[in-house]
Parts: sequence; C-alpha cells; structure tokens
Amino acid sequence: MSEALPKRSEDYSGWYNELVKRADLAENSEVRGCMVIKPYGYSIWEKMQQALDKMFKETGHTNAYFPLFVPKSLFEAEEKNAEGFAKECAVVTHYRLKTDPNNKGKLIVDPEAKLEEELIVRPTSEAIIWKTYKNWVQSYRDLPILINQWANVVRWEMRTRLFLRTAEFLWQEGHTAHATKEEALFETTQMLDIYATFAEQYMALPVVKGVKTENERFAGADDTYCIEALMQDGKALQAGTSHFLGQNFAHAFDVKYQSKEGKLEHVWGTSWGVSTRLMGALIMAHSDDDGLVLPPVLAPIQVVIVPIYKGDDGLKLISEKVQQIVEELKRKGISVKYDNRDTHKPGWKFAEYELKGVPVRLAMGQRDLENGTIEVARRDTKTKETLPVADVVPHIEQLLNDIQNNIFQKALEFRNSNITKVDNFEDFKKVLAEKGGFISAHWDGTNKTEDKIKELTKATIRCIPLDAVAEVGNCVYSGAPSSKRVLFAQAY
Amino acid sequence: MSEALPKRSEDYSGWYNELVKRADLAENSEVRGCMVIKPYGYSIWEKMQQALDKMFKETGHTNAYFPLFVPKSLFEAEEKNAEGFAKECAVVTHYRLKTDPNNKGKLIVDPEAKLEEELIVRPTSEAIIWKTYKNWVQSYRDLPILINQWANVVRWEMRTRLFLRTAEFLWQEGHTAHATKEEALFETTQMLDIYATFAEQYMALPVVKGVKTENERFAGADDTYCIEALMQDGKALQAGTSHFLGQNFAHAFDVKYQSKEGKLEHVWGTSWGVSTRLMGALIMAHSDDDGLVLPPVLAPIQVVIVPIYKGDDGLKLISEKVQQIVEELKRKGISVKYDNRDTHKPGWKFAEYELKGVPVRLAMGQRDLENGTIEVARRDTKTKETLPVADVVPHIEQLLNDIQNNIFQKALEFRNSNITKVDNFEDFKKVLAEKGGFISAHWDGTNKTEDKIKELTKATIRCIPLDAVAEVGNCVYSGAPSSKRVLFAQAY
Repeated sequence: MSEALPKRSEDYSGWYNELVKRADLAENSEVRGCMVIKPYGYSIWEKMQQALDKMFKETGHTNAYFPLFVPKSLFEAEEKNAEGFAKECAVVTHYRLKTDPNNKGKLIVDPEAKLEEELIVRPTSEAIIWKTYKNWVQSYRDLPILINQWANVVRWEMRTRLFLRTAEFLWQEGHTAHATKEEALFETTQMLDIYATFAEQYMALPVVKGVKTENERFAGADDTYCIEALMQDGKALQAGTSHFLGQNFAHAFDVKYQSKEGKLEHVWGTSWGVSTRLMGALIMAHSDDDGLVLPPVLAPIQVVIVPIYKGDDGLKLISEKVQQIVEELKRKGISVKYDNRDTHKPGWKFAEYELKGVPVRLAMGQRDLENGTIEVARRDTKTKETLPVADVVPHIEQLLNDIQNNIFQKALEFRNSNITKVDNFEDFKKVLAEKGGFISAHWDGTNKTEDKIKELTKATIRCIPLDAVAEVGNCVYSGAPSSKRVLFAQAY
Repeated sequence: MSEALPKRSEDYSGWYNELVKRADLAENSEVRGCMVIKPYGYSIWEKMQQALDKMFKETGHTNAYFPLFVPKSLFEAEEKNAEGFAKECAVVTHYRLKTDPNNKGKLIVDPEAKLEEELIVRPTSEAIIWKTYKNWVQSYRDLPILINQWANVVRWEMRTRLFLRTAEFLWQEGHTAHATKEEALFETTQMLDIYATFAEQYMALPVVKGVKTENERFAGADDTYCIEALMQDGKALQAGTSHFLGQNFAHAFDVKYQSKEGKLEHVWGTSWGVSTRLMGALIMAHSDDDGLVLPPVLAPIQVVIVPIYKGDDGLKLISEKVQQIVEELKRKGISVKYDNRDTHKPGWKFAEYELKGVPVRLAMGQRDLENGTIEVARRDTKTKETLPVADVVPHIEQLLNDIQNNIFQKALEFRNSNITKVDNFEDFKKVLAEKGGFISAHWDGTNKTEDKIKELTKATIRCIPLDAVAEVGNCVYSGAPSSKRVLFAQAY
C-alpha cells in the first residue's frame, strides 16, 4: 500500500490500470500486449471457470482439446472468418533456432527450418475443429456434437489493456454441430442464457441479451447473440457471445451427415465463448476509489480477520478466540484468512484488504476480547457493526448473501438509470457526451447509418435487445421508418 | 466396434496406437505432430488435473498464467536452457496475413508485418517467468514464490506419438523461488513425492524415484529428480520431473533479494512438471488386448449398466429396477451410465465398454429380474458373478477399491519382476534383448560410459534411485569402481 488510487471521477482509465496492478490481478509482461495473470487474479478466473464448466456439463457438453496451430490452408477455408481475423494473426514460419555464428551465446532462426506451410496461432478454433468434425460425422447418429474447449488464443491487437484487450487471452470456446437448424438455434440461445445467468448470479453483473447487427457479427456467423453490460464510466462492454453459424463451416469443410431418411445433409453449427475479458468487466462494474469490490461467490477470500493487539500475550489470547471462528466459517464452506502477521499494522491491513475487495472484514481487539464481541465491516457499503462473537458466523452467512444481492442491485439500478430513450440525433449526441450509457433509439436497419453514427459519435449498436418491443418510429439519424429500438453505446 | 485390436505380444506399438484411437482418447490432427484430445480422453486428463491441482494447493501453491510467447532475447538468457531447447522451437516471425493479390480468396503472410524480435512459442516457461520474478522480488519477505501454471507448450519433435511425444502438449509447470538452497531442495523433493503419490494412488502406477545423470538432466538445472515407470513391453517411461535449478535462472535474470541481515543474495529456484504424457503411461501400464483398463479413481465412467431385454415392455421393467441402482450409486458419488440404447446389441455394448476400460459392468436380463439378481463383471480380471440386487451397491463400493488395488499390485509385481540385477556387459545385453525392463547395474559415473552403453544398446540410465543402497562394485561396462547401482532401460 503506497499512495491512493487515481479517482474514478478524475481518471477512470488510470484508476482501472492502477487497480488491476495494485490489487495483484495482472500486469503487463515482457511480450508486447501479453499479460501475466497473477495468482490473486487467476484465482478469481478459476472460480469463474468452475462455475461455467459446471453449467456447460449440466447441459450435456464435454471438454476436449484441439491444436494451438491452424495450417494456413485450413484457416482460409471459411473465407469470411479468415478475412475477419487475417489482420490479427500471429504466424509461425520456422521450427528451429541455431547458434548465431557471429555472436557467441546468441541464437538465430535457422533459415533451413522454414515450414512448408505457415501455421496460424489460433485466434479462434472453428477452422481446425470443423476440419476434425468432418471425420467424426457420417450419420445423424453422430450428432449432436457438444464440445467445449478451455484454451489460450492470440489476436494481435495494436492497442491493448489488461484483461480487456490483450494479444493473448484465455477463454472457453464451445463448438457444436447439429442435424437441424432448430437444434442449432436452440443451442445458440441456450448458451446465451447460460452466459446471462452466470453474469448476473455469479458476477453480479446485469446484462442485456441481444443480437448483433451485421456490422458487429462474428466473421463466419449467420447471427451473433451477445450479452452487453454497462461499466461505471458509461461505456458498454460485450461480455459474451453465442454464434449461430448456420451451415457456413459445414460448407467450407464439407461436413455432411446422412439423415434418418437417408438423405445427405450439411450439418448446422454454433460457437460461443467468454474470456478473461470478464475479469475486466467484473473489476470495472463494482469497484470504487478504495479498490476492488468483489461479489462474494467469486471472491478468493470471503472473510479476512485482523487482530488488533499489544504484545505476544495479547495476540495469543485473540488468536485462540479467532481460531474457533475460523474453523466454524470453514465448516460452513466460507473461505477465510486470518492475517496475524506482525510485519504490518492493522491500518495497513485494512487498506490492503479493501484494495483486494475482500467482502467481509472482522477485527478483534483487546476490548472486544473482554466484551465477547467482534467488529464486522462490509466492503461494499463500508459499514461496520459490533456483534457478540456467538452471533458472528450465522450473521456472516447471511451477510455474504446480502452483499452479493446488494452489489447486483446497485449495478442494476446504475444500468437501468443509464438507458436513455432518445428520438433525435441532437439528443443522441448530447446524451452520449454528457451522460453516456446505453441509448435506446430507432435505427433504419442499414449498415450505412450505423457506420455514419459510429463515425460521428464513436457509438456502435451494442445489440438489438431480445426483449425489444414492437414500436413504430423513425431512425434517429436518417428518419427512415423503424419497428423497434436498438441499444447504442460507446464500448470497450 | 469393428475388428479386434492388434495383440500386445505381436505388435505392441500398433496395439497402443489403435487403442488410443478406438477408445476415443485422442487422434492425430491436421497439424503435423499435434493431437486432438477427444472428450473421453480429456475427461481422464481432467480427473488427473483435479487431483494434482488439489495436492499442489494443499502444499501452498497457487496457479497463475504467463505468456505463451518468449521473446528470443529472453529465451537466450539462460544459455544451457536455450541450447537445450533451441532445436525444437516453433518461432513466430509475423503478426498479420493479407489477401493474396494473385490468388483470390487466399491469404499470404504480410511481409510488412515482420516482428522486430522473433517470439518463441514456449517449450517451457522458465525464461519468461524468471524475467517476471525479477520484478516481484526485492526482500526475503517476498519469498518464497510458489506458483504453478496449467498450460500448453510446444516442442517441435520430429517423430511423434499420441500422448507420448507430441509437438504440442498440455502440462502443468511449477516454478518456485526461495531464499535458501535448503528450501529449494526441500521443494524439489516435496514435489517429486507428490508426483510419486499421484502416480501410485491415482494412476495405480508404481514408480521409482530417482535423480538423473548429467546427460539426462533438464537443460538449466543443477539436478533433475524424476519418477520412472515401466510399461508392459519392458520399456521405461519418465512420468514426471522435478528440477533443482540452483541459482542458474536467478543469475541469468538477475533475481536478487535482500536477506534479513541486509545482504543482497541470488534467489534459489525449482521447476517441476507432468504432462499429457501421463495419459500414455496410464494406457500402456494397465490395458490389455481387449482395450483399456482404467483405475477406478480416474475412470470417467466407473460403472456401466446394460439391459438385456426383449421388447419395450421388457426394457421398461428392467429400467425401473436399474433406475434405483443408478440413483443409489450416484448418491455414493459413483459415476454410472445406464446404456439403454436400442441401436446396439448387448454384446456390442459389452465389447465397447471393455474397449473403453469401464471398471465395472452390470447386466440385468429377464431371468435376473425374476430372481432379483444382477450380473457384476469386473474389467481388470474379466470375472463375473451374480448377486442379489439388494447387495450390489455396497459390493460395488468395495469392488472399486479392490480393482484399484489389484491394478496397482499387478503393475507392481510386473515392475518388480522386471528389475534385473546384472554384473557384466554380456548379461546386460542379453537381458535387455530377451527380457527388457529395468537393469540394475553398477556404473562408473562418467558421461562417456553412459554414452557408449546408449550407443551399443539404446539403453539409458533412467535414474539413480533415491533408495539405492551403498554397495561396492564395478561398472558393468568399464569395470571401474562404483559405489551403488543405477537403473538402465530402453525408454519412451
């Protein structure tokens, strides 16, 4: 703990960058655009993984693993997909180094070890996976294929930010193959629903479910469904996508099956993914000027206990009492840390655990020991109360639920109060400049208008909400007729 | 299920390759030397991961994630390590593709997007991690660092085999930093012990713990400890390694700490890893000519139930009875599959689950239904018995333990009966040619002798066992004096 974080109101971007580093979540590495995910950050990601993995398996999916590399000829096969990612591809061209004859102890790429065909480091795995599915599918009995992969992918981004946009990131990518369009569409929306449930129930992050416009669609998909969240600075963040791939990859890789009726048909596909970008969303959605605010269900440490004591004897008496609480909390499945280090003062520890977003802090001093009490402080509201020790464990069980709910409600109210209906372009620009958030407006359905609005305001259509109600109106930019509102925002 | 597997006695290598593919564990991909780990194989790997991850965390380690790429200048820094891996490195030289002006719909590497410094796809992560640790360590208070990473690595092998040797593989790599040599040595052997415990208790795979000779040491380590296992064809397989890195990487990356006494000291390091190669060991150690034999604690399906029936009514009555057993087994935490598909005959199913190594198979037919019995077959011994339905669940709980123990004992007896003491080079060659297995022999301690023996027999020193007893003797090749026996073998 050194100086304070930048304030969100003064430098939101600086606040985010500093918070990620100081809370020991991640840092930039020696490799341009690639991050190191530090243990504290990784342990949050592990909790996210576990929850998602369970939801995937409960809906019949299994994990598998496909190669990191995609031969260029495969990568090219689905042309739209290839075109969409070509500019961001890391390419392996050689498979050997040799000692530099002119520079002792140094290595150079061995020019004789040039690959016949370049290998693309996967930016996404549709190509290699559909090439594999081709061999797995002959009959309708081989379908559906419901596979997920936890993996690293590389997209060579020019401007990177920890978690939000990095050259390498971790993600999961589901890739499914189905006999019918209906099944594939069901899968696409089922996975969107799982993402939305995960965001809301685990991350305490309210999201809008919607479908992307053609401009914002995944390269190679017929439709891209998404969940969109709002950050505290009024910018939107795409938190997960589920793609209906139609028969595009089946055509590109010639994946056909024989139907029950004996007809040869192309397979229907979906793919869906969330990434370590969710870490960025989690941090930005809830945290404050003092540090992280973590929803209890994803917090690596849910409760920290700090002793306030004088001398070894004082510590010993407090520790005995605390040990009972620690054991009781552990029995309830609550993760707890007792920080009895003598190298740091209580005040330092308080600030440290605020920075790290530990949901509940307990403190016990000499007076508490005499009175049989303990101080309970919650991170989200910064409120404190003193309770009898006997009541503290049941209280904490309830408190963790309350904090989870409170964080979600707060984010929900913020999000809802930052969806502004706008009916002309002057208001559109004004709201965007002064308030930010989502703008709910009519749009004429053309790429041209969308491009123009983006050019003028940097706002894009985040999605056409699935629950958009039919409403006669006029496009906020062109005035052309429109049948429902879409959500615009500037976005991460 | 089509034709039978090759027999181990006739074509061990063909047996292994076919088994891996037919049991749906893995297959070769479109990328030279890279495999696809299929869902059934991956679910075994997941069970291995979970068990290991738990053991790592119980000993104070946390997971983190470091970049896939290592800039060439970092990779070079620890010279022995760099030299050891240089010939196997996949190298990224470009970061963009563009459309081929001469070939519509095709892509070429954009020559203008050449990286200033080449990036090595990590063959192991010491370089990038120690470069990071440099910034994390100032004082003794920052030590130890106890980090593990689950990741993919790439080593460009010329001759590859599914699981055993692939260009890309999955592994975990622990990287720790310590204030003292003693602590680092303790860590090295602690992790070796964890690997040995895991191999024996989970994989049912007996291993010899030992230390490598200089020839076989990890490039950049002062000492490499290992666990060595024996496969059914008499070849050894290195199943895990734990390296004492001394201060080599601390010197290469200038990682120093201020001691309690205020002195600036170099940090001591370890690294340790196991990989998807363990899958190969698991398959080869226990399986037979009919297919996989899996230890129950790692089996994705522990019990399969097959109904033998005539007509829908027959199936319905059996299913009702089976459903109770399924629920009872699940309550006990036993994974069970009821295969009531009407697309395959019972005999086909029996063969299929034998191929896939399901430890226990239950079958219920019309006669069983009338008698209140069920047939219980175990995969490891191929024995069958008929039991009253009421007894079956407690019986299975015990049976799974028995199978786990039996598989281990069988492998242990095989291994022990294939460690042959040899005292002259004629016998050495004879035993190696006729019997195989481990040869326990005296060695003069020189690289030269080790190289010569390898050249003449393809056998290498697998390890100097940690429990080797002091024994005066003469080198099996040179006749020079020796104080203990080492283990030779041909190896995977």
